[in-house]
Amino acid sequence: MANPVLVEVLRGALIESVHCGAVAVVDADGASVLALGDVAQPVFPRSAVKALQALPLIETGAADQYGLGDKELAIACGSHGGEPAHVAAVEGMLERVGLDEAALECGAHWPSHQPSSHALVRAGRGPSALHNNCSGKHAGFLCVACRLGIEHRGYGAPAHPVQRAVKAALENLAGVALAEGSRAIDGCSVPTWAMPLPSLARAFARFATGHGLAPVRAQAAARLRAACAAEPYYVAGTGRFATAALERFREGVFVKPGAEGVLCGAIPAQGVGIAVKVDDGAGRAAEAVMAAVLIRLMRLDGDARALLDGFARPILRNWNGVKVGRLRPSEAVLPVT
Amino acid sequence: MANPVLVEVLRGALIESVHCGAVAVVDADGASVLALGDVAQPVFPRSAVKALQALPLIETGAADQYGLGDKELAIACGSHGGEPAHVAAVEGMLERVGLDEAALECGAHWPSHQPSSHALVRAGRGPSALHNNCSGKHAGFLCVACRLGIEHRGYGAPAHPVQRAVKAALENLAGVALAEGSRAIDGCSVPTWAMPLPSLARAFARFATGHGLAPVRAQAAARLRAACAAEPYYVAGTGRFATAALERFREGVFVKPGAEGVLCGAIPAQGVGIAVKVDDGAGRAAEAVMAAVLIRLMRLDGDARALLDGFARPILRNWNGVKVGRLRPSEAVLPVT
Repeated sequence: MANPVLVEVLRGALIESVHCGAVAVVDADGASVLALGDVAQPVFPRSAVKALQALPLIETGAADQYGLGDKELAIACGSHGGEPAHVAAVEGMLERVGLDEAALECGAHWPSHQPSSHALVRAGRGPSALHNNCSGKHAGFLCVACRLGIEHRGYGAPAHPVQRAVKAALENLAGVALAEGSRAIDGCSVPTWAMPLPSLARAFARFATGHGLAPVRAQAAARLRAACAAEPYYVAGTGRFATAALERFREGVFVKPGAEGVLCGAIPAQGVGIAVKVDDGAGRAAEAVMAAVLIRLMRLDGDARALLDGFARPILRNWNGVKVGRLRPSEAVLPVT
Repeated sequence: MANPVLVEVLRGALIESVHCGAVAVVDADGASVLALGDVAQPVFPRSAVKALQALPLIETGAADQYGLGDKELAIACGSHGGEPAHVAAVEGMLERVGLDEAALECGAHWPSHQPSSHALVRAGRGPSALHNNCSGKHAGFLCVACRLGIEHRGYGAPAHPVQRAVKAALENLAGVALAEGSRAIDGCSVPTWAMPLPSLARAFARFATGHGLAPVRAQAAARLRAACAAEPYYVAGTGRFATAALERFREGVFVKPGAEGVLCGAIPAQGVGIAVKVDDGAGRAAEAVMAAVLIRLMRLDGDARALLDGFARPILRNWNGVKVGRLRPSEAVLPVT
């Protein structure tokens, strides 16, 4: 792979580490606006496409039948930190379909939000599937299965109608056919489908604009975006990039990270979707790249720029709080003007 | 940078991520045995050189004066997990010089060993500098200052006699002059000096063989290696690569990771030192590369190979324990024979 350096990590005056990768920005018709690196390489989008995986939740009528509000829809699109309010929102979704955490098939892990993790420890408890960052998405899958009146067990299997519906939505938005050979298993056990970055970016351009989508799908996408913009805390959590960006820009941008250095987004007013993949899987670099791409495309200055600069060029401090270095986007990502 | 791919990360049948980097293997005279990638690029060795930073602890007579045993010397060379026995060993070192944790200037962080971290939470306590993975090294620095009869406060500053002694040892072993411009601040606030990988590898070849070193220094190195081989648990901790490798090979290998994808080591019987830097700073890749390089150079098979294969080709499982992928060293690192 010969992808360009996207992010440099400085310690003192020297470059300590670098992150290479690829970026695609395209419009809803698939026309390229920006392409860095080998964008033809298929990429597993992982959790970056949770908002797309949530489309059947609206389209099947499940969200309406079960009275899901913005918080529930946002957490269905989110990778939450396992904070108490996140857990409560997911529990609330499950209650509406007469299920509980035992129905979740995502597996358990400690909350990524450390204070919430420590609160569990202090209470003498361990993590449950509710604390899994994907539990909102999974609760959404269960709502879809219940709405369809089908067996919910095994809802994560590729052949289950819920995953078939998710796959069809992904194919429609991305404008690709997803072959079996491009399927692998995600961290939460549902399928993840590899596709080139421009396809992923196109899916988000369509998600953000509705352009080229059937009216029902365009409306579903708009409703999910509005929910994420209204309740950004439920998309990620305290101190997190996606939450901060959505709080600042509301419906003006969409961003959602996935594991292994993937980050997808959109700028609805420009009609473009954005897909970032850091070769080595580093989330720190994916955030810096996405923040820099938003600065570049939106020509930001003032407080909006300052907010994103905090993610594009984060300062690295050591255990004594001493500034020891920082990240910076390369000129390939953010040319000096 | 155009370093080769050293490690591939597979999800299902596809490559999800890759790690590029450089590797240098040299003998004590600096002759190259293996070089992959741009080995001329200076690299901050970070914690990978803790055993070299501990040489003054022996050479000044501090270890003898304060009666330090293998556990104390191993933890002075180690990056421990903050487990109770680690904390006790560091406390013991400090007691011998009449100091306590307040003298440590490394800063505090939660133990990386999760059960130990949770035990602190349950006890209603937070982490102290004793739990910092570098606290053993810092306790060693304090022992040196006390032995020299000098002010111990500020022992981490570049101009302090302790750090001057450390720098001189590094320069001697690596065979380089460390210019001010190559200095930055490490995570624990002491200086870290950038040097090319062959210099770093040469330092470990000399550390492992004593070749080219003054007798006092060669004996100090041998004593530290013996201590790490005798007490590998104090070099890292439960489930960690360095501990597992030292337990299996004892004085037959030396390995020590540092932050940002650095891993140094040696094979004493072959008279070589090894230095690995993963461009993007990923520790998962550095471990896989070092394990693969040891397999390659030592022509391992049987249970020794099986142990290292577990680090060279770790299986990735998701939150349900399902196998979703694995890491594998590239052919550049471990040619198929």
